[in-house]
Amino acid sequence: MTELTFHGLNIGQVEPNDDLVDRIVETAAAEYPLTDGDIVVVTAKVVSFAENRLVEADEVEVTDRDHQVADITGIDPREVAVIYDESEVIGAIPIAEVGEDVLLEHAVDPEAAQEALAEVPAMLVTERNGRLCTNAGVDWSNSPDGMMTLLPEDPDESARRLREGIEAQTGADVAVVLADSEIAGPGSMDLAIGCSGIEAIDNNFGQTDLYGEPKVGGVDLVADELTAGSALLFGQADEQIPVTVVRGLEYEDGEGVPNSGGVVRRGLRKSVQLTARLKAREWF
Amino acid sequence: MTELTFHGLNIGQVEPNDDLVDRIVETAAAEYPLTDGDIVVVTAKVVSFAENRLVEADEVEVTDRDHQVADITGIDPREVAVIYDESEVIGAIPIAEVGEDVLLEHAVDPEAAQEALAEVPAMLVTERNGRLCTNAGVDWSNSPDGMMTLLPEDPDESARRLREGIEAQTGADVAVVLADSEIAGPGSMDLAIGCSGIEAIDNNFGQTDLYGEPKVGGVDLVADELTAGSALLFGQADEQIPVTVVRGLEYEDGEGVPNSGGVVRRGLRKSVQLTARLKAREWF
Repeated sequence: MTELTFHGLNIGQVEPNDDLVDRIVETAAAEYPLTDGDIVVVTAKVVSFAENRLVEADEVEVTDRDHQVADITGIDPREVAVIYDESEVIGAIPIAEVGEDVLLEHAVDPEAAQEALAEVPAMLVTERNGRLCTNAGVDWSNSPDGMMTLLPEDPDESARRLREGIEAQTGADVAVVLADSEIAGPGSMDLAIGCSGIEAIDNNFGQTDLYGEPKVGGVDLVADELTAGSALLFGQADEQIPVTVVRGLEYEDGEGVPNSGGVVRRGLRKSVQLTARLKAREWF
Repeated sequence: MTELTFHGLNIGQVEPNDDLVDRIVETAAAEYPLTDGDIVVVTAKVVSFAENRLVEADEVEVTDRDHQVADITGIDPREVAVIYDESEVIGAIPIAEVGEDVLLEHAVDPEAAQEALAEVPAMLVTERNGRLCTNAGVDWSNSPDGMMTLLPEDPDESARRLREGIEAQTGADVAVVLADSEIAGPGSMDLAIGCSGIEAIDNNFGQTDLYGEPKVGGVDLVADELTAGSALLFGQADEQIPVTVVRGLEYEDGEGVPNSGGVVRRGLRKSVQLTARLKAREWF
């Protein structure tokens, strides 16, 4: 295994209730026929569209709580309502205040960028399906006017349905990974939010190193590495490559992205305790 | 741009003071000759070896502070001394206590894994070259017995030297990205710690979406996406593919991974303030 190919599929604009399996299979058949062992990486956005996970903002019921959180964060109260409905809210990041210099430095059009930041000055840190994400993955961008797109209800299940649909139509035994763009440091990167037919994490923890010693490491986030690599081809805005086919990787069979939510929350609390103990020497 | 190829180069074991440019150029010449526009992704570990960034543990001077931090974290006091020398320590994560169930579930050999976790039960969160990392990137694994490997002193500068060396020998105008494995959620992934000849972040913030609206997004961490994809080929343990050549990506010229350290620290403080305001409603 010394070469991987990431092939982008331009499946065109996806509309609500489109049959995504058909679109993927037809586009692939024309330019890059699917074969056993291929990994099909699909952006969550088109899966949400095909599953009709769109919400009309004006039809959302807004409570006092939603208005209060909107006042604190600047997020549209209708979006706040949807985020609380979709997830558990754990914290907030003042994205505009913190990152403005870095983000505007990388703006294609500073005026449009200012407008976008003014519209969404903060983000909520949320837990959904046991995984951390921002704003529960709720997204106005690339959505029809006045609509928000929600993440697929059960991303692992969506991946499984796509995998089985592709196999039924082509006979190819493929894996499917769902990707969603997430904030990471000074920018964003696509991470895996669901998968089927592939083990999301490499099972090599504690493997020995080149010198024969067991090492802390080898828990490669294979599914995230596939989505991150695919993001090099995904159109973030006005391009239309929401699907890649990755060929050449040997991988283990498996289902689902591990639910690490409990670990993350436990980790946050314990990390704060340990850091306080560590810093006590400097602080007191 | 609809297809990318990640080609892994097996350059063999790298020893201190080896000429890494020669090794990369010779291996590539034999199996995958370098050409203009290629991106060469190199693990920091082999760059550190070639730059002789190895420390004999028994020659490290250990202070009272190092013993105290070792008592709190379980990290070898000699490693603590090196970490403080290499970076600013910001906090700690009790990795064994928090992640033991997840990590052992993904262990190739649970007994060896237990041993590895017992040896490194906690990690320090550090800032180095303005970027966050764990344990300042100091690593005992894949190091000769009794030695620790440090990160390259200036990873952007190392990337620049490799890029210029490759161009001098082959005439190929390539980009170079240095990758280091980092803890991310329930596992690890390779991120970019240095680069040359490529803009690390895509400059599309505030670009309009498919519906013509400016969006918060489009700040793709291109260099991190390249290292994450390459990690699918890198040997984490006893394989020897520390270099990939990525072909087919259109990218902007640039130098260096943005130093976001100040933003991250400012962000931490402001996020805590905002979260407290948000949670006050529930907590008080």
